[in-house]
Amino acid sequence: MEKQKVTAFAPATVANVSCGFDILGFAVEDLGDKVSVSLSDIPGIRVTHIEGDKGKLPYEIEKNTCSVAIRAMTEALNFEGGLEIELYKGLPLGSGMGSSAASAVAALMAANTLLGNPFEKKDLLPFAIESERIACGAGHADNVAPALLGGFVLIREYHPLDVIPLHVPRGLYCTLVHPHLVLNTSDSRSVLRRSVSLQDATTQSGNIAGLVAGLFQEDMALISRSLNDVIAEPSRSVLIPGYDEVKEGIKPAGALGCGISGSGPTIFILSPSEEIAWEVSRLAQQVFDTMQLPIDLYVSAINTRGAYILEEEI
Amino acid sequence: MEKQKVTAFAPATVANVSCGFDILGFAVEDLGDKVSVSLSDIPGIRVTHIEGDKGKLPYEIEKNTCSVAIRAMTEALNFEGGLEIELYKGLPLGSGMGSSAASAVAALMAANTLLGNPFEKKDLLPFAIESERIACGAGHADNVAPALLGGFVLIREYHPLDVIPLHVPRGLYCTLVHPHLVLNTSDSRSVLRRSVSLQDATTQSGNIAGLVAGLFQEDMALISRSLNDVIAEPSRSVLIPGYDEVKEGIKPAGALGCGISGSGPTIFILSPSEEIAWEVSRLAQQVFDTMQLPIDLYVSAINTRGAYILEEEI
Repeated sequence: MEKQKVTAFAPATVANVSCGFDILGFAVEDLGDKVSVSLSDIPGIRVTHIEGDKGKLPYEIEKNTCSVAIRAMTEALNFEGGLEIELYKGLPLGSGMGSSAASAVAALMAANTLLGNPFEKKDLLPFAIESERIACGAGHADNVAPALLGGFVLIREYHPLDVIPLHVPRGLYCTLVHPHLVLNTSDSRSVLRRSVSLQDATTQSGNIAGLVAGLFQEDMALISRSLNDVIAEPSRSVLIPGYDEVKEGIKPAGALGCGISGSGPTIFILSPSEEIAWEVSRLAQQVFDTMQLPIDLYVSAINTRGAYILEEEI
Repeated sequence: MEKQKVTAFAPATVANVSCGFDILGFAVEDLGDKVSVSLSDIPGIRVTHIEGDKGKLPYEIEKNTCSVAIRAMTEALNFEGGLEIELYKGLPLGSGMGSSAASAVAALMAANTLLGNPFEKKDLLPFAIESERIACGAGHADNVAPALLGGFVLIREYHPLDVIPLHVPRGLYCTLVHPHLVLNTSDSRSVLRRSVSLQDATTQSGNIAGLVAGLFQEDMALISRSLNDVIAEPSRSVLIPGYDEVKEGIKPAGALGCGISGSGPTIFILSPSEEIAWEVSRLAQQVFDTMQLPIDLYVSAINTRGAYILEEEI
């Protein structure tokens, strides 16, 4: 029996990952977006329902990341039938947790399954990158790749696209601290210097090499020593009140390190156990309570599954 | 019975390793320096014999890398006895194959064994770095660390020193092409730009992350894609006639990639088999024959043993 409607989930993701500026991302569990895609007798792609976005997301198919992604896919297939998209946002917009990526990836997963899986999961990535071009003005993959594939994903190169899943150490946990303030991705990018000293470039290389080695060797101490971003964090962290206080407090509490998730304002903290991940979440709560700035907190293992199908209706 | 004389070997090394500029090195087999250290009744450290250097290396203990390294060690031990050093150079000077590092590391291995192993092997590294400060004007570790420990070694950071042995894939071979021309290390450093674009820094980070992942995953294709240096090679390779021709020819022959060994002029080529490593050595020979520039060629597996003791006399 032909499927009529498929619903998929795609998780929140942390891009940049400190020394992994622009090349590394990872996925978290539970938190994410759901998208349902249905067959329709009316040709064309339509966004019919959006929930959880406080009315902020567009229904125009040229602007909505779900429809942009699905259209890129259906064009590749020469599919000319009708598809209707319902988007259920679980992620806050503009939070730095890969909100637009999660929507696009969930949409692609649902549409691909609905159409009988013409693509392998990993081959959906170029369509998701196309949708990021709309959302961010640049076709980044460091959110969409981990949202799709799960785990830690290295984007070694874009032309041609070279996406490398890395090993995820057992026991690694993430705390996400989302302060209720809005940073615009392009503002956050504009504070970056256009050039860096040879010394800083070398330091960054050493740290990302150490981080990758630490992931493969499950060496938590090495991961911790390597989580140091000398390129983006110094300019971007000043945009996030409380960042320095959180950073200062987490290592004595046993966390491995922290960084700005994507272009912020969410702060991610990596910990070697769930217990410590909760401990540092309480510490972050105290920091932001003092500043009377509301935050959301999430604690999660690293999601090694990526996007998945929730429901198929026939 | 107390030892009277110990002889040690330390191998040639390739530092920088393309995208691993200033942070990565590896060791080769067979090719290297030998150093004998003997107890003497006359207090103090003396260099008594140097062979294979065409008379170019200094006997002054403040200038010879062997004596500088050993003195750093004996000072740490408060050892005030007499030591005599004989150096047998197997490596050409100024070749970019870690000549000074091999001498210093072999000297430290021999002296440490002679004195009853007061230090673990890895703890000799700071003394070797001290000797590099004399030889290169900067205390680099990307030759001495692999010369001592073998394999691929990441120098994540210098202050404090963080040296990380990486996995060596089975079947990985190296070809060294040493053209007979002299480049001065400090000249070779002076051609480097003091700053790099954010884009180049990000590309380099992606490549070193890919190279480290490729080594751990034994993924030869990923290693090959990652062997791309956008920071040092563009300025340094113009100092090495034949470099571009070698680089162009090796990939069609099945090699993984190449780069400048240390600050040159030696070119290293990595291959996925011994057969291909020999094949590309013939290719390099043709390139340099055409230019009538003499070269030395070496083909070797990656040395995973590092420095070792050859002989102990009691």
